[in-house]
Amino acid sequence: MNVSQRGEQMPSSPIRKLVPFAEAAKKKGVKVYHLNIGQPDIETPPAIMEAVRSADIRVLEYSHSAGNESYRRKLTEYYKRVGIEVNHQEILITAGGSEAIVMAFMSCLDPGDEIIIPEPFYANYNGFAVMAGVKVLPVTSYIDTGFALPDVSAFEAVITPRTKAILICNPNNPTGYLYSKAEMEALKDICLRHNLFLFSDEAYREFCYDGTYISALHLEGMDQHVVLMDTISKRYSACGARIGALVTKNKDVYATVMKFAQARLSPPGLAQIMGEAAVDLPDDYFDAPKAEYQARRDLMIRRLNAMEGVFCPNPGGAFYAIARLPIDDADRFCQWLLESFTHNGQTVMLAPATGFYGTAGLGKNEVRLAYVLNLQDINAAMDCLEEALKKIRLEVRD
Amino acid sequence: MNVSQRGEQMPSSPIRKLVPFAEAAKKKGVKVYHLNIGQPDIETPPAIMEAVRSADIRVLEYSHSAGNESYRRKLTEYYKRVGIEVNHQEILITAGGSEAIVMAFMSCLDPGDEIIIPEPFYANYNGFAVMAGVKVLPVTSYIDTGFALPDVSAFEAVITPRTKAILICNPNNPTGYLYSKAEMEALKDICLRHNLFLFSDEAYREFCYDGTYISALHLEGMDQHVVLMDTISKRYSACGARIGALVTKNKDVYATVMKFAQARLSPPGLAQIMGEAAVDLPDDYFDAPKAEYQARRDLMIRRLNAMEGVFCPNPGGAFYAIARLPIDDADRFCQWLLESFTHNGQTVMLAPATGFYGTAGLGKNEVRLAYVLNLQDINAAMDCLEEALKKIRLEVRD
Repeated sequence: MNVSQRGEQMPSSPIRKLVPFAEAAKKKGVKVYHLNIGQPDIETPPAIMEAVRSADIRVLEYSHSAGNESYRRKLTEYYKRVGIEVNHQEILITAGGSEAIVMAFMSCLDPGDEIIIPEPFYANYNGFAVMAGVKVLPVTSYIDTGFALPDVSAFEAVITPRTKAILICNPNNPTGYLYSKAEMEALKDICLRHNLFLFSDEAYREFCYDGTYISALHLEGMDQHVVLMDTISKRYSACGARIGALVTKNKDVYATVMKFAQARLSPPGLAQIMGEAAVDLPDDYFDAPKAEYQARRDLMIRRLNAMEGVFCPNPGGAFYAIARLPIDDADRFCQWLLESFTHNGQTVMLAPATGFYGTAGLGKNEVRLAYVLNLQDINAAMDCLEEALKKIRLEVRD
Repeated sequence: MNVSQRGEQMPSSPIRKLVPFAEAAKKKGVKVYHLNIGQPDIETPPAIMEAVRSADIRVLEYSHSAGNESYRRKLTEYYKRVGIEVNHQEILITAGGSEAIVMAFMSCLDPGDEIIIPEPFYANYNGFAVMAGVKVLPVTSYIDTGFALPDVSAFEAVITPRTKAILICNPNNPTGYLYSKAEMEALKDICLRHNLFLFSDEAYREFCYDGTYISALHLEGMDQHVVLMDTISKRYSACGARIGALVTKNKDVYATVMKFAQARLSPPGLAQIMGEAAVDLPDDYFDAPKAEYQARRDLMIRRLNAMEGVFCPNPGGAFYAIARLPIDDADRFCQWLLESFTHNGQTVMLAPATGFYGTAGLGKNEVRLAYVLNLQDINAAMDCLEEALKKIRLEVRD
């Protein structure tokens, strides 16, 4: 019995393919610093866990397919605080940001349609595109400009009659880049001129350190074009909750997404309670995690750029950075770090950047680092990387 | 900005389209008995809610994409008890049974492929087929034979080179039919002879009242063909948890499903704790809900068949039945029950059976009833239906 061609085309997770090597290293007693995945170590707010504990539930029933109305109404307060005016009938609760992306693809794009994504991009977008039968058109952003939005001309060079949408992640995973007002306006112009949807994955909205955060829903005149994908995973360090949201003012899109939502009945019930309680966290809740991430970023970027032959632009948001290393095969290097290298019995796990580019051959001397560990661990991880690069340099000289 | 053709093709939920009429009736003060949806009123076992409350979680992290290993290992015990020998690497935890179905379709079927489903069938299978670009080939089962499996010849009459799978729900939603050993063997023969997958939705496994339950995974020589879709929704009256499972011994299928699972990162975290705790419920846990459902079934079927012109075969399992009524338009009748009929200030909400047939025109004098209310309410609901049918008869005579 053969699997489908679609199943064969479905990409494996480029981040997780090194996992067996990390497991083998740990079995040998090596301490592995995980900078490879965006699993924050920040505590999930105890108050939102407590909200689940104290919920009085006799029968855990299906919720509304769009999510509990009380939660959606509550979320309008949250969005208002970040300058987004929406009502509860423009919000649909999903199983993580992932489901919001799949539903947007399914509702707005047909098999054979194309979607433009600035690369490097979150690798799972490829998987969602395979599920929807959609072709990804990568438009390259470059490390030397800090992964700024590619020129409008680069977008227009790839647009065909089948191109239906642009997808951005802002602030960006994997680059950490925060799009400027001018860049967001440029995206708006392209979408209006070419009649494209603007899908905006804003999972990291709360974590912007420099510059001003502009949501796609802040753009005037774009109400019919914008579909926002959101999640509480990173916002409240609650990745395992699997609660996200799709937000759109386009009523046809909302009604269509609702049909997909009804087919799967309802989003996770218990975690909706967490999401609802989170909106009532004190106003200063984000101050501490944001300051913590910023300190980590500052340390990591400083350490990276102090290493010989390394360049890492300073990311404006999220908790990722892409660094260029003095190597020629990031996949081999990341595997070697786990298989053959230790420094004081420790090593570091990184994500080769190749998995984040749609264009074959790009990113071979780049890695993505997630600063989701505490300062001490980041320092130790940077020690490992520095020593590893020294070792490689010596071997090359020999 | 137009939605996709796929989005347009996506069917609305036939069960929920009467909801506005039910809401209007309630606003007028009418008591509505909901026999239209499979939301059980049975209490979610307090012990599994307590497991969530007492879980010590500092950071609610992503779980393994296949679900927590501890939960999957625990589930092997559960499956052993129902005569299914599987290991934890043959189980993948999903966001409800719905996600298991979508992942199976995506992994085993390509756009344009066909899947045979005996009708009437669970209406959301249509939606999942639209998502996967798959064509549903309905094979009709008939109320006069209690919705027994159609003859092998009926299956073979529709098979083409693009036919890749048969999907059954056993015991069945919406008919309550429990497939016999001979019927399961017949399905096996068809699948082996025509090289088809057998997708088996066994959400209602625990609720069989007559006959012997045969799982698709009980069939010998079918390991490469069977993909089982499962859920804790009905088993433990935990529909809102959104925890299901895909079980298969076909390693290629499992590996392919795993790629889809990795793309969406992980299944809901808190509810996996519920699922794991549920396996440790006392052996006699199901005795009470099963006896309760059986008593409800016995009452409802007796009441239905005592009504003039009504026929309802006795369902062997699940908690649904399809009844033939002396009406000619079930959709209109069900709407009328909500809009224009009351009996002692009460009425009943039923699901027109038309939404469960893939063949247009079938089921126009049938309705699906879910016996998810207590005996007193079922009796009151049957009073309403009986009075409604009397009223219609009088109006026709007038």
